[in-house]
Amino acid sequence: VTARRLTGDASAELATITWRAGRVRLLDQRALPAKMRYLDCATVDDLIEAIQSLAVRGAPALGAAGAYGVALAAHTLRTKPQVRAAARKLARARPTAVNLATGVALAFEAYESGGAAGALAAAQQLALDAIARNRALGAHGAPLLPVSASVLTHCNTGALACVGYGTALGVIRAAAESGRDPHVWVDETRPLLQGARLTMFELERLGIDATLIPDSAAASLMAAGEVDLVILGADRIAINGDVANKVGTYSLAVLARHHGLPFYVAAPTSTIDPDTPNGAAIAIEERDPDEVRAFGGKPVAPEGASVRNPAFDVTPAHLVTAIITEVGIARRPYARSLPSHLKRAGALYSPG
Amino acid sequence: VTARRLTGDASAELATITWRAGRVRLLDQRALPAKMRYLDCATVDDLIEAIQSLAVRGAPALGAAGAYGVALAAHTLRTKPQVRAAARKLARARPTAVNLATGVALAFEAYESGGAAGALAAAQQLALDAIARNRALGAHGAPLLPVSASVLTHCNTGALACVGYGTALGVIRAAAESGRDPHVWVDETRPLLQGARLTMFELERLGIDATLIPDSAAASLMAAGEVDLVILGADRIAINGDVANKVGTYSLAVLARHHGLPFYVAAPTSTIDPDTPNGAAIAIEERDPDEVRAFGGKPVAPEGASVRNPAFDVTPAHLVTAIITEVGIARRPYARSLPSHLKRAGALYSPG
Repeated sequence: VTARRLTGDASAELATITWRAGRVRLLDQRALPAKMRYLDCATVDDLIEAIQSLAVRGAPALGAAGAYGVALAAHTLRTKPQVRAAARKLARARPTAVNLATGVALAFEAYESGGAAGALAAAQQLALDAIARNRALGAHGAPLLPVSASVLTHCNTGALACVGYGTALGVIRAAAESGRDPHVWVDETRPLLQGARLTMFELERLGIDATLIPDSAAASLMAAGEVDLVILGADRIAINGDVANKVGTYSLAVLARHHGLPFYVAAPTSTIDPDTPNGAAIAIEERDPDEVRAFGGKPVAPEGASVRNPAFDVTPAHLVTAIITEVGIARRPYARSLPSHLKRAGALYSPG
Repeated sequence: VTARRLTGDASAELATITWRAGRVRLLDQRALPAKMRYLDCATVDDLIEAIQSLAVRGAPALGAAGAYGVALAAHTLRTKPQVRAAARKLARARPTAVNLATGVALAFEAYESGGAAGALAAAQQLALDAIARNRALGAHGAPLLPVSASVLTHCNTGALACVGYGTALGVIRAAAESGRDPHVWVDETRPLLQGARLTMFELERLGIDATLIPDSAAASLMAAGEVDLVILGADRIAINGDVANKVGTYSLAVLARHHGLPFYVAAPTSTIDPDTPNGAAIAIEERDPDEVRAFGGKPVAPEGASVRNPAFDVTPAHLVTAIITEVGIARRPYARSLPSHLKRAGALYSPG
């Protein structure tokens, strides 16, 4: 295995979320892959709207959005109670990813001691840390991929989901950069097609070989021996190792087990929640039925059809082969390995 | 359990495929649920185009389309070699469902002995038989549904797929008609959304309680105890019980097994192919990448993205709890029960 330069134009990193002249600038993920459009949020309400409509998404990116949002509140609102109220509202904008609430809490703490400048510095630090964690995570995970492996992934876990570099896609990227030559099967990821729209876009930019599939084709590819392993991200990991992630993740975990394939979760330790004992304690967001009933404004089901549209599902720890974090590879029993990862990560990245 | 009248307007049966003034009239399924539009095919080439673009689909309906297509050839072409060539082309229009080729063969045999009128009479008889078989199949299958069962289904197996009544949806319909009050989880069925567009449309017409889900949400509903059984159709059943059906079927079979749920296949004996020894012998149609890359003409993935788009998958017999046909319930070992079903069905429905 020898390192190689990727053929894509990845040297121009995506600017998923940045602070720009007193506003939070987002690369608007709703417009991808058709358009590279930026969205400047001037108020916390703008940012909440952007978060809820998925202009920015992905657990680590939501952590940065939460922290930058507090900085935005501190720069635009006059009193501390106003900033606190805005921070609370922001923390609740989406319920499943733990990073949003912890990003808010971290920046609010910095605001209390250092004012608006303190909040902004904390947000900037969190964003830089997120990228550093992902690069470390990628380096730990890359050797898990055999040379020329066919890797199946779901949703988007690249730079767009993570401020920079990526979690599961970061592992794949690190494997490609180290010459392991992966091929990626990309689940389109209904209903919002983050796989088709975002992951295919990122892998093409990186020059990594990728093939798009409908979510329901994953099983027959596994049966045909065309998948070597599954790797994906997480929105929240309970301290017992249960994993909440994009709906369809649990399905892939069961299929991987049935076919004897490794099932890896890649996430920074900031996605592990020591206050969530297990998957049953994780709130699963139910989203707008029209995400399923219509497509680009065009109805695809009878008007008013009843819909169940959970954004996430929970994969029990016993189906997870390993959890890759920025400090290494956590294996079962997770109730032991995850607290150890949190402790080691705290030593590396304690804020301030 | 007492019989009840369904509340929908199902008394007006859907005219999936009919012979009309020398043409084959199709209810154009590409336009549903937005529009009830009919398509009159004046030539075999028109009909082949309609079959390949899924204006008509579903194994039993394709059987009728094959037979009516031979009648159309016999009425519009002058010589027997021309009719034979058209029949051959028609039989190969789609590879997976065995019914298309057998419908063609049956009508062509009738044409050889009885000319154009003979072919048309055979097609009409095949269409009537298909409906009668489905009603019998529904009656056999309905008692498999517990009262107030939550039933998960995939793709469309209703009147639209079957000339009339339906296979898996026929079982659900028969259960509803006999007062068993089922609730149906309907997989949207990417990429062509036959579940969202067609099954939701049919169940609403029938007044049967249904909820639409993204395909990848089925697993977490099973884990939550919200699914009692899975029932779906087949495009071809090998004589050992391996089942080719819409992509995603195999995934549901693995998930049903993992969650200890019954997995039923409902299909008339015309879908069982005694000449197909097992699933490995079934050709799986690979369809246009643009079905996955674009939606309603609007791109959802980077231009030219590599795509794998198999229309079907194969579920091995050992994952199939039972196969419901018009003569009863076939169970393992299928190598014994399926030939017996074919024999009994032959006695009931031998053509002529």
